[in-house]
Formats: sequence, C-alpha cells, structure tokens
Amino acid sequence: MQQVEHFLDANADRFVDELTEFLRIPSVSADPAYAGDVRKAAEFTRDRLVDAGLTAELIETDGHPIVYGEWLQAADAPTAMVYGHYDVQPADPIDQWISPPFEPTVRDGRIYARGATDDKGQMFTHVKSVEAWLKSVGKLPVNVKFVIEGEEEVGSGNLDVFLANNKEKVACDIAVVSDTSQYAPSMPAITYGLRGILACEVTLNGPSQDLHSGMFGGSVANPANALARLMATLHDEQGRVQIPGFYDGVVPLSEEERKRLANLPFDEASYLKGLGVSATFGEEGYTTLERRWARPTCDINGIFGGYTGAGPKTIVPASATAKISCRLVPNQDPHALTEALRKHLESNCPTGVTMEFSAYHGGDALVFATDSPWMNAAAVAIERSFGTAPVLIREGGSIPVVTTFRDLLGVDTLLLGWGQDTDNLHSPNERFSLDDFAKGIRASAYLWDELGR
Amino acid sequence: MQQVEHFLDANADRFVDELTEFLRIPSVSADPAYAGDVRKAAEFTRDRLVDAGLTAELIETDGHPIVYGEWLQAADAPTAMVYGHYDVQPADPIDQWISPPFEPTVRDGRIYARGATDDKGQMFTHVKSVEAWLKSVGKLPVNVKFVIEGEEEVGSGNLDVFLANNKEKVACDIAVVSDTSQYAPSMPAITYGLRGILACEVTLNGPSQDLHSGMFGGSVANPANALARLMATLHDEQGRVQIPGFYDGVVPLSEEERKRLANLPFDEASYLKGLGVSATFGEEGYTTLERRWARPTCDINGIFGGYTGAGPKTIVPASATAKISCRLVPNQDPHALTEALRKHLESNCPTGVTMEFSAYHGGDALVFATDSPWMNAAAVAIERSFGTAPVLIREGGSIPVVTTFRDLLGVDTLLLGWGQDTDNLHSPNERFSLDDFAKGIRASAYLWDELGR
Repeated sequence: MQQVEHFLDANADRFVDELTEFLRIPSVSADPAYAGDVRKAAEFTRDRLVDAGLTAELIETDGHPIVYGEWLQAADAPTAMVYGHYDVQPADPIDQWISPPFEPTVRDGRIYARGATDDKGQMFTHVKSVEAWLKSVGKLPVNVKFVIEGEEEVGSGNLDVFLANNKEKVACDIAVVSDTSQYAPSMPAITYGLRGILACEVTLNGPSQDLHSGMFGGSVANPANALARLMATLHDEQGRVQIPGFYDGVVPLSEEERKRLANLPFDEASYLKGLGVSATFGEEGYTTLERRWARPTCDINGIFGGYTGAGPKTIVPASATAKISCRLVPNQDPHALTEALRKHLESNCPTGVTMEFSAYHGGDALVFATDSPWMNAAAVAIERSFGTAPVLIREGGSIPVVTTFRDLLGVDTLLLGWGQDTDNLHSPNERFSLDDFAKGIRASAYLWDELGR
Repeated sequence: MQQVEHFLDANADRFVDELTEFLRIPSVSADPAYAGDVRKAAEFTRDRLVDAGLTAELIETDGHPIVYGEWLQAADAPTAMVYGHYDVQPADPIDQWISPPFEPTVRDGRIYARGATDDKGQMFTHVKSVEAWLKSVGKLPVNVKFVIEGEEEVGSGNLDVFLANNKEKVACDIAVVSDTSQYAPSMPAITYGLRGILACEVTLNGPSQDLHSGMFGGSVANPANALARLMATLHDEQGRVQIPGFYDGVVPLSEEERKRLANLPFDEASYLKGLGVSATFGEEGYTTLERRWARPTCDINGIFGGYTGAGPKTIVPASATAKISCRLVPNQDPHALTEALRKHLESNCPTGVTMEFSAYHGGDALVFATDSPWMNAAAVAIERSFGTAPVLIREGGSIPVVTTFRDLLGVDTLLLGWGQDTDNLHSPNERFSLDDFAKGIRASAYLWDELGR
C-alpha cells in the first residue's frame, strides 16, 4: 500500500492535468450538435483505462457509446464494477458562468467546469486509483470492471439494453458509483438511499398559429392560460402533490431513521442563504432533510409558450408546454405514477385545448442495508483517506442504474460521493475541490484494499 | 358630383398604376435597412398630395417623417383629417409569398403586395378622392388635412409628440381612418368601437440560480409551480376574469346593440376552421362576436421559466415569467386596472417566491355614438358607392391614435374599412381587391360631399 500511496503523491499534478483535458470536451449528451464531442469524451475515457493497465473498448449503442474496461486477474477475490458517466448536462444559462463552462479554471483550489463533479471528476478518481495499483504494485487486490456511459444526463436509454444483453460480462459482487456528494466539507458520506424519478412533458395546443389577441382574444381558449390552470392542480397550497394515489405506496420513515437524520448537523439559515431564498417551502410535518431525501415531490422544470422576447407582444399563443418531474421514494412505482399523472392531467385539462403528453424516463427509489460488509469496507477506506468516519445519508436525486444493478445483477451499490452538494451540479459554475479529488482517488485505492481482504 | 364621378371613371386605371408604384417601395419601418425606402414612400405620398392640389410637406421626427398635407379653402365647411400610414409590416416569411411582396401582382382582381390593404391601398383612396374633386370641380366641399405617418407598425412613437406640438395645425372636426375592414365581401362596415388595452409582465423569483430538482426539490418553493398557481387565479373555469373590480366599470351591452350584433351573419364553423380550433371558449352568456368586440379579456401572451430546450432537464427554475395583457371595454380604466392586477397578483403570490411587476402601455377603449351626423354622412357615402348600407361593427383590437384624437383634439373618428379581414394583413400574400379600392375611392369622394352638406 505504501507503493500505491507514493505513486498517488508523485502523480497528483498529472491527474489534475488529465482531468482538465477531460473537462475541456463539451460532451453534452442532450444536444445532437455535440455528438462528436460526446464520442471524444468516450474515447478519452477508454484511453485512460488502457493507460491504467486495463483492457478497454467502446461499445456502440443506438445512442452514445458505452466505455467498458476490465482487469480480472485477482483469483478468488471479489469483483467490483465501477459505474459512472462521461456525458454532462447542458451548460445554459451560459451567461451566468464566471469562466466558460468548457474552459476549466482553478479558483481557490477548486476546478470550475461543466462536469467537474458530475460526473467526470468523481468517476475519474477510480480510473486513477486503479492506475496507481497497477503501475506501482503491478496488480489489484480485487477484480475491477468499468462501465462508463454517455447518456446518464438523458435517461440512460441504451445502458439498460447493454446491461441486459451483457449480464455475464458485467457480473460482479458489488457496484461502486461516485456520483453523489459528501455531507459537507470534510464530512465524507456513504449514501444508502436514493429517490426515484419520473419525468414527462405536456403540451396544450390551441389555435394553429399565434393569434392577434385583440381580434380573437376572449373567443378561443388560450393555451398558456389553460396550462397555468392545469399545472396549478398538481399541488395544494402547502405543496402537497394532488395526483390521485401519489402517496399511496410511500414507505413511512422509521423513528430510528428520523432520529439519525435529525442528528446530522444542518444549518437551515446557511442552507437558505446558499440557495438565495428567504424560507423553506414544502410538505408540512417534515424536516428539510426529510423533504429533500425521503419525501416525494413534483416540480415544473420548465414552462414556455407564446412570446418570450423583450417587451410586449399581444398574442394568444398557439401552444404552451411544461416539463414536469417527480422525485419518488420507496415504494412508489414510477410507471404507474406516470400513468396516474397523465390521467390527472387529462381529466383536469381545461376545455378548448388539446393535450399532448410524452413520458421520459422513470426509475425506482432505493434504500440499502447500512450494515453490509461492503458498506463496512467502504467506511474504513473513507476513514483512512479522509481521516474521519463517513456519515450515512440519503440523497434526493436519482441514479436509475443502481436499481438496474439490484434487479439485473442482484448486487448492492456503494454510493461514495467525493464532491460537495454546493458544487453547482446542473447549474452554472459547476466545480470540484482538487483536495476532494485527491482524497477521492486515495479512498478509492484503499477501497480496493479493503474489498480484497 | 357628376364631374367627380366622370373623373373617377376616366382615371381608374391610372389610380391602380399609381398604387402599384407605391406598393413597389419596401417601406418596412421596423427594419433600419429599409430606412431609405421608408423615406421614399413618404416622398411618394407627399408628391401625390401635391399632384392632387394640396399643399404638402414632410415633417421630420426622431424616426421616420410624417407627411402633412392640407386644402383649407372651404369657408364655413367642416374640416376632416385623414390619418393613415405609409409604412408596412416586414414581409417575412418571404418564402410563403406566391408573388414577391414588393412586386405587386394582380390575380383574380386582387392586387397582392405587402401594404396592399394595410395601409397604403386604403389610405390612398382618400388621396385620390380629393384629387378627383380638385381636378374636376376645382374645389372640395370640405376642408381636408392629411396626417400620414411612417411608424404605425412600430408603435407610432413620434406621432403623439407631433400631434401634441401641433394641436392647431391638426385641429379638425372629424378624423377619418381607413385601416380597418369591411365586415365581409360586399358588406361594407363602419367600426364604431375599439377595445382598450393594458399590458404587463410579472416575474416570480426563487433561488438565485436553477437548482438540481433531486438535491433540492421539495424543500424550496418552485417559481414555475408558483407562477402556474398565480396565473390560475386570473380566471374562473369559464374564463371569467377574477381580478377584483375588473368588471366594475364595464358598460353593459344594450339590448339594441346585442340585437344588432346578433343580426350580423357569422359562420362559427368556418371561424373555428380558420383558427384551427374545435370549439370557442369564453365568458358565458355572450356570443363570439360579443366576446371578441365588446367584452374584456385577460390573456397570457407568453410564459417562460426554467429549461425550455429539447428533452428533460430536472431543475427547480430560479425564476418564471408571464407576459399578460387585458383587452378592455368602456369604461374600464387601464391604469386603475393595471394597479388592480398588480395588487391581485401580490395578494395571491404563493409563499417562498418574490414578485417583480412591470407595466407596459395602456389605452382606453372607445365607442362612438352611432347616430352622430358624421356617422350618418359616412353611412350615406358608403351606401352610394357600394350600393348597400354599411353594417355597424366593433373591433377587438386597439388603435391608440384614435384615443389621442379624442383626448387631444376632442373629435370622433370615422373608421371606414374598405378591405377584408381575410386580406392577410401582417401575413404572407397580403392583398386588396381592386373593386374594393375603386369603391373606397368613390365612397371617400361621396363622404366629402356628405360632410359638406
């Protein structure tokens, strides 16, 4: 292990240089204009795995390629599969970035770029830890597989097909994913629960083109008026979701878990300040952490229709659209609830407009046992690197593939976040602390050691 | 009058040639690239007024010039002021024009060109009728003034300044405007009512930037959810506006007027087909024409917030905005109702977001007495030319200058439309029937006769 530690120290700067190069690639999977860059990011990932000493390849899909790599020479040792993604969220609103999203810039020990933490930077820690073992010791204490996809930000549409068709290839004992966060700076965490998700888009169509609101206004339904009316049916005043059956399957929080969550340090005033709001808002009877991690939501992610330029333009819009997503908890069924949402919208759709509904991805929520040997190995590895034992937390976001790993491969996933939840994921000025990057690489290196015991 | 009629017959072809020349000038006021052509159209208008026997000049403004002309030698006779505009809407989408927008082409007795009806062709009828009097009889039965502007399609920014600074110069007994439509082919109309307007924009602000809806959703107010909730308070299910006091000042339709509107032929099926909708929608207890012309409305003209690109992006938007306008009827006060709207929105604003409100322009609705001597003169003139008495109609849009004429000059306006509302105003393939053009000139000539009696 000393050899590994020495290698990590000696190569720390190079690792940052490589990450910088990786972050320069605008691998925005949602926008077809960036398809070439998405592929470049896949090739970059594959090449670094090969450099590290793994065999690695691009596997073509109907969308962006999957990078697969493996090193399987640790006989009788368990097999860990690292999952991550090389694609990133769109960078807009671009004008709110202090430095350009694809020109990585270090300020105050943090590297700023789209994908810095989500997920290029965090995923890359495992590539580098494996390299450190193979280039110093010459072997790993465990077998490792890497499955790094390029469609995580657009619903992982082709990953499930790949996994289903390659069950043997990806078979493992434990999955490892670094796409979550520490609980706070110098407070590393293991995430044992994730919310599920459903997402959809609804468009209300009215006249065949925008109409002069003077000549026609008042005589035909206005799709923007109608959409507001329809969206207002989704919640009551306290923000409780009004889709019929929405809360039916929800597993209530145990007293023990509520106590554990309540023991986590949480400064509501600084939370609000960080978000730029003056008050929390949400379901009555729950703490802010419970609302974020363990209670379901329904959010309009985007809304648009009619004239959106400067100044007035007095029209009746031809259509109006809302993008909606719900965060789910065990045991809400995303597919049943997507259907319930569609029915709710249909039955509340104002007269005079026609509704189009398209469902995007859906995924189950998950909660893992907190006392498994895997969990214990990860806790020790993290404490060895960060100097402090990790806290156990849940996460409000969704990582649908973790459900697939459970259902298809029968394995738990270690969700080991090296970043901070203040790192502006999905927002302008995304960043990753270079100290967290280095500690993440080291914790990953210790993890292989602990899993191999 | 026979001399005038003879002149009109003898010069009908030349009038079309001159209109064609006028329409060849691409006087698009919105596009600075056409500024030279806009001036050419002003000069063309001035020169035709001079040809007709008036004194005429270009009056410079901070934008495009105003053409002013006059003939004031009818002692003791009333003075009519013709208002119109020589500027036109942009021609795009150009590729949808069958013949080029600035190469006037006659098909099926209609001249196709941008500005054919709005407003070059309609305005030009009054120039030619005045010419007919002055070149045949040698004098007019009334005094006439012409105020023809070049910024009507861009908000008439400099007209009000000119009118306010030249009250004496433009003083008159009646204003005449041909910038509306007949009710239907061979169904000439006098428009005696216009709706007023108020317009504003409201933005709800939440977090200082878009947030990951998984990490934060459920714990802070979502401005898009809140905006939908707020906008939904503007109407009840039947589309009746819920702003307190909105209907307080509304002058109810008289039984006589309702009867008159009900007698107008109106084919609802073809109206709906034209708009591409399957049903009308609006305030209960009113016909479609009443809803369009004589009842107030509140329309969201545009709504936007959060992610509006393709596919899903699961965020809590930082803000959401709606552009709203209300069409008003007598005696709703646009300024008082803007304030009532602001208060309504403030008092219904959901918790957890902050509201910004900006008011745009406002303008009064107008309804003129239908039994004035001016109105009677116009009705007789139209019947003499078209062979059928005009119907009395209202219009749902606003012509703000008509309010200025009332407030500044204390005069009514005769809104005499010679074109059709199917003439593709503001759309590709704008046109004007040459028969309507000739009848419009003749009706204008008779109008001077009737007003002089």
